[in-house]
Amino acid sequence: MLDHYISVRKQTENFCSPLSIEDYTPQVALHASPMKWQLGHTTWFFETFILKKYVEEYQEFDAQFSYLFNSYYNNVGDRIARNNRGVLTRPSVKEVYAYRTHVDQHILSLFQNEQPKELLDLLEIGINHEEQHQELMVTDLKLLFFSHPFKTTYKENGSLLEDKVHYFNEWVDIDEGIYEIGYKGDQFSYDNEQGKHKVYLHNYSIAKDLVCNEDFMAFIEDGGYQRFDLWLDEGWSWVQENQVNAPLYWEKKNEEWYQFTLGGMKKVNPKAILSHINFYEAEAFARWKGMRLPTEFEWEVAAEKFEWGKRWEWTNSAYLPYPGFKTADGALGEYNGKFMINTMVLRGSSVATSPNHSRKTYRNFFHPHYRWQYAGIRLAKSL
Amino acid sequence: MLDHYISVRKQTENFCSPLSIEDYTPQVALHASPMKWQLGHTTWFFETFILKKYVEEYQEFDAQFSYLFNSYYNNVGDRIARNNRGVLTRPSVKEVYAYRTHVDQHILSLFQNEQPKELLDLLEIGINHEEQHQELMVTDLKLLFFSHPFKTTYKENGSLLEDKVHYFNEWVDIDEGIYEIGYKGDQFSYDNEQGKHKVYLHNYSIAKDLVCNEDFMAFIEDGGYQRFDLWLDEGWSWVQENQVNAPLYWEKKNEEWYQFTLGGMKKVNPKAILSHINFYEAEAFARWKGMRLPTEFEWEVAAEKFEWGKRWEWTNSAYLPYPGFKTADGALGEYNGKFMINTMVLRGSSVATSPNHSRKTYRNFFHPHYRWQYAGIRLAKSL
Amino acid sequence: MLDHYISVRKQTENFCSPLSIEDYTPQVALHASPMKWQLGHTTWFFETFILKKYVEEYQEFDAQFSYLFNSYYNNVGDRIARNNRGVLTRPSVKEVYAYRTHVDQHILSLFQNEQPKELLDLLEIGINHEEQHQELMVTDLKLLFFSHPFKTTYKENGSLLEDKVHYFNEWVDIDEGIYEIGYKGDQFSYDNEQGKHKVYLHNYSIAKDLVCNEDFMAFIEDGGYQRFDLWLDEGWSWVQENQVNAPLYWEKKNEEWYQFTLGGMKKVNPKAILSHINFYEAEAFARWKGMRLPTEFEWEVAAEKFEWGKRWEWTNSAYLPYPGFKTADGALGEYNGKFMINTMVLRGSSVATSPNHSRKTYRNFFHPHYRWQYAGIRLAKSL
Amino acid sequence: MLDHYISVRKQTENFCSPLSIEDYTPQVALHASPMKWQLGHTTWFFETFILKKYVEEYQEFDAQFSYLFNSYYNNVGDRIARNNRGVLTRPSVKEVYAYRTHVDQHILSLFQNEQPKELLDLLEIGINHEEQHQELMVTDLKLLFFSHPFKTTYKENGSLLEDKVHYFNEWVDIDEGIYEIGYKGDQFSYDNEQGKHKVYLHNYSIAKDLVCNEDFMAFIEDGGYQRFDLWLDEGWSWVQENQVNAPLYWEKKNEEWYQFTLGGMKKVNPKAILSHINFYEAEAFARWKGMRLPTEFEWEVAAEKFEWGKRWEWTNSAYLPYPGFKTADGALGEYNGKFMINTMVLRGSSVATSPNHSRKTYRNFFHPHYRWQYAGIRLAKSL
Repeated sequence: MLDHYISVRKQTENFCSPLSIEDYTPQVALHASPMKWQLGHTTWFFETFILKKYVEEYQEFDAQFSYLFNSYYNNVGDRIARNNRGVLTRPSVKEVYAYRTHVDQHILSLFQNEQPKELLDLLEIGINHEEQHQELMVTDLKLLFFSHPFKTTYKENGSLLEDKVHYFNEWVDIDEGIYEIGYKGDQFSYDNEQGKHKVYLHNYSIAKDLVCNEDFMAFIEDGGYQRFDLWLDEGWSWVQENQVNAPLYWEKKNEEWYQFTLGGMKKVNPKAILSHINFYEAEAFARWKGMRLPTEFEWEVAAEKFEWGKRWEWTNSAYLPYPGFKTADGALGEYNGKFMINTMVLRGSSVATSPNHSRKTYRNFFHPHYRWQYAGIRLAKSL
Repeated sequence: MLDHYISVRKQTENFCSPLSIEDYTPQVALHASPMKWQLGHTTWFFETFILKKYVEEYQEFDAQFSYLFNSYYNNVGDRIARNNRGVLTRPSVKEVYAYRTHVDQHILSLFQNEQPKELLDLLEIGINHEEQHQELMVTDLKLLFFSHPFKTTYKENGSLLEDKVHYFNEWVDIDEGIYEIGYKGDQFSYDNEQGKHKVYLHNYSIAKDLVCNEDFMAFIEDGGYQRFDLWLDEGWSWVQENQVNAPLYWEKKNEEWYQFTLGGMKKVNPKAILSHINFYEAEAFARWKGMRLPTEFEWEVAAEKFEWGKRWEWTNSAYLPYPGFKTADGALGEYNGKFMINTMVLRGSSVATSPNHSRKTYRNFFHPHYRWQYAGIRLAKSL
Repeated sequence: MLDHYISVRKQTENFCSPLSIEDYTPQVALHASPMKWQLGHTTWFFETFILKKYVEEYQEFDAQFSYLFNSYYNNVGDRIARNNRGVLTRPSVKEVYAYRTHVDQHILSLFQNEQPKELLDLLEIGINHEEQHQELMVTDLKLLFFSHPFKTTYKENGSLLEDKVHYFNEWVDIDEGIYEIGYKGDQFSYDNEQGKHKVYLHNYSIAKDLVCNEDFMAFIEDGGYQRFDLWLDEGWSWVQENQVNAPLYWEKKNEEWYQFTLGGMKKVNPKAILSHINFYEAEAFARWKGMRLPTEFEWEVAAEKFEWGKRWEWTNSAYLPYPGFKTADGALGEYNGKFMINTMVLRGSSVATSPNHSRKTYRNFFHPHYRWQYAGIRLAKSL
Repeated sequence: MLDHYISVRKQTENFCSPLSIEDYTPQVALHASPMKWQLGHTTWFFETFILKKYVEEYQEFDAQFSYLFNSYYNNVGDRIARNNRGVLTRPSVKEVYAYRTHVDQHILSLFQNEQPKELLDLLEIGINHEEQHQELMVTDLKLLFFSHPFKTTYKENGSLLEDKVHYFNEWVDIDEGIYEIGYKGDQFSYDNEQGKHKVYLHNYSIAKDLVCNEDFMAFIEDGGYQRFDLWLDEGWSWVQENQVNAPLYWEKKNEEWYQFTLGGMKKVNPKAILSHINFYEAEAFARWKGMRLPTEFEWEVAAEKFEWGKRWEWTNSAYLPYPGFKTADGALGEYNGKFMINTMVLRGSSVATSPNHSRKTYRNFFHPHYRWQYAGIRLAKSL
């Protein structure tokens, strides 16, 4: 696991290598944190939950960092307001990298000797936590660069959207019956996906392919963003208040659709998989098709019969506890459970997800109006 | 059904009989409509969906009323903004009653002759719609009167909270297995509760009694509103931003709890059933007890084994479509389906619910922060 | 003075005589109070500053009214929030009229005997205060009725804007020199206009006529609302944020301008005097003309040489204390002085001003963005 | 003048020399711009108004910079929203310095040859403009560093507040009469201070010393921030909404007052001059003393009889045009005139003002609620 630790830590820093010092600090939205903050926060996680608890006489790198780099753990004490992460002129980027090195050295030193399972578990959750932030760094940076009046480019070939899609319009039929849901292996998993249990599903059919850009263009051309009857009430309010007429990052020039990518503005490939839509748009599109989104259970049951892993896929399931759900003790109990309201489940993983950080029981969740993730649509229908 | 129509219409007006003219107009919150508006809106419903469609050469009472009294039906055209219902100085209360009489006369005349099922169905939905508004009129008026600096009294003996409770702390155990959910009789029901289907439930236990006031006082005294670990993240934000320390309408004077009722301020009866808490509070209370809220399915399956009908009961189920859910065609399709996001299901009915307007499959739903309904808590636990 | 008291009190009630009970309660903007509140507040003024202080064993009509009807006098204690005056379902309109009668009887009884000057002064200020509110009742009611989706009419011939104007384009030239400013007679005046003092004025010219509607139409047609160079920076922001393209109450239909009046929608008379513009619009119009607004001192010095009294006239003077300004002691010291920031002075009086409630030294003042008064433009230029 | 140009440009960069790259980008308030933006904006001013207009075939450094670095000149075209200056990750700090060098070289080359007065005037206004921004850079950086949870220090000995004050409580009496106001020399001055004209002043007395910290501590201890009678109405609202109880940057620890400075937190020296109060506080303090603030005319007339130059001094004059005020043509006409509403005049200059950038006719102006300037109080009284 130490190799995994080293490679994940390295990978975070690799992602930042094209950045200028100036790119690390600004915060462009409440839900999108600065790169410098994320570099510090992922490090703080290891320091707080492992080093400060298990290394005798551990000297923390800087006593003030706990205030700066705590995200939302009330158990760990006061912290900077979430919308204030952009004023962190100090510590410097250099100091944050020094912080990373300091913590890495202590972690490596600690785990060179055999450690009890409890500690290995904490290391593993820290690694997974950093993998989650790797994905957020991609999506948060994209949003920041898009917000610049001239749309900064991350790197020339940085786009993650150049995928081809083989679109066969094939469907998988699943029979009515009792199915088992939830994680029960001995690899890493989060508390929110544990608690293997049974659900009863009725006959349904689910698409093998994700919706591609030309499908969504047809929705737009058919007046999808102007027809109230296709939208949930809050979705329709969102469309009107924000005057939405396309997915995030899309812009029309001379009758052609372009989209902002980490490699700059690119023409939208009609055959590539749709991305950067929110739940409202996914749900409206499905209704326009006369279909619906799958539930997270329908998705999990069928997941072995289709390819996934390029887009987070919105389901029509609210993020709620499984039967018998138990939050972990202490600060780590704040990891998942306390967000189980007003959010919807996404299944799968995306092109921005770290390698190996996906499994078919993984439950991602966001408020229905967020679009900055690489999220797409898989259609379903009742039979 | 005509008798039902007459009695429901009469009951709405009876509720208003203690009001002064001045009480009918103000709007005190986005979600609480003026009495005058509700008197007009329930009437508009019959005029719009029955009289204007099925009565030849029907002369509408006032062509402008459709703009004023449409609630949220995009299909029916433009309408007054929801937060603007309080500027309706005109029509006068008298005119609105004349509008009611006018529509009543035409409805009675129309239905004196036998009518096709389609029309009877519309009449029935209109009656049920008015019954729903009867409950809202109670709760909206209570909120308005509470907002007055000196807390207006509706009528001396108007309190609906003077119930006694026999608290036995008994529990019902339900065995794991497949259960059927949803309405399938031939009485009236809404589209959102139809689509009878199967769910798989695991062993659970559910309380026969609702939580009473002294239970919740213990939560308060134990610092329930100060302990972040008991709350969902959004619930904790809600507590802090609004500096909440008690249920809505509660006030402490000289170490005693009082609550605002339609009969004025009354001492809180510790043995009476708790009311006017929101989902966040219900969920936090259950966690404090080491238990949880039931899902709406657990509630429905067990509902024959306990008494219910005094409080709407928060469940831990998000309001989402049943398998095979279909919205009705046209405007009435906007009745339920478009609200299936970011709301939680309440089951049962309350002391403010119209007689007969309840059944065990009925799905009520509100945003988790609302407290102005007569909502309470029934505890559950996994076995 | 008792006759004056009686006639002013009567006049307030006369203005309300066409109103329905429903018209008295709603509040449509922070700065526009309900009629019922104003009926009560003007009465509270006499009760608070005269009856409760000078009548032994005076029984106040209702102890709660001081909280409800205090406008902004911190000296007098807590009060209802200004934006909350629209929830006052109670007292009823009838009770408020009974309150007026009660206070009137005590005032009449008190002043039937000779009283010291101090008391007569208080009576006089109360009368003037009520006259001020008479004007606000006109303008606040107009705004309320305009806010109704169908624009309620006060009474058929209620428009105050049907004035003719003889437009001669004549100018008054005033010579450079020292002039005396401020009130120094023995009639009633406010503290803010007292403190007679000298100002030095440079040569200027001031228009004998007010700007009329066709002048302002020319400004509109010349793109006045689209040309940033004509506006103060905050004025330009105001235009853009509110998408303003005409004076308040104006609407264009079929290439004709109409305006809302207390007598309903009427065609705009091009030869009548412009009204319902704010300081930003007045200042931009003057700049467009290559001229400017007069200062309040230029206005006062020239006031005997032109007709005034139909519109409040925006000046380019900020509302600030005269040399030697002293606020009155106690609560009445809060009448004027504490508003001497961020407001501009208007001189003259308007068609909505009570008879006799005007003099050439009178200083009215409003924030520069308000448009609901009958305010107009008189041009000036330096020579 | 070229020497002046060189030294001012150099001075701007000297101020930035202690900064890290990370310090240049964040924006902490709408009215406080990032250092990088100010470095670019002052350079853009010379490029836009001189090089692009007067140098044939001038190649602008970067065509996008006009959008990024235009502050509020509508004449010059579209620009970035003022609250969005903090997302400018690019250009890098290095590029902005290169931009400065590029423009400096062209300016130096242009002015090595003799140029017409028109061009010299533009150069002079550009130099004065940069001097103004030098002061803003000091105050904006201070606000940014204060906003950091741990209050970044600019440099150890960076405090500008360590001044001593000789407090003699002496007063200057000025006789009633006509005085001349406004600039009329042949050095540089802004359009807003030109137009020499006469004002009539009444007898008054003005303090030779500025109010010092211990004076203001006495105001605080006497409940100054709790007594509504001392405040303008909007000032009192500001106090309550922001729960103000001390000047900006002050904090009380263990019964001692400390203040944030560019050199870190320092004990407040009771004998040093008060700073960082706004107009509301200045006006309330003066009222508490039974005195008042001087008008800007009283200040200017007496200015030769007292020392000034350490604090901007709030006057009780609104910022309005002098008689005969004319705005310059073109974009530079937007420099001053369009802000003549809702702002108050400050006279003098401060410890943060650039050397030579002060004269007794200089009119600075800010909204009455701003506190981030080094502004203080000089008392006056009518005789």
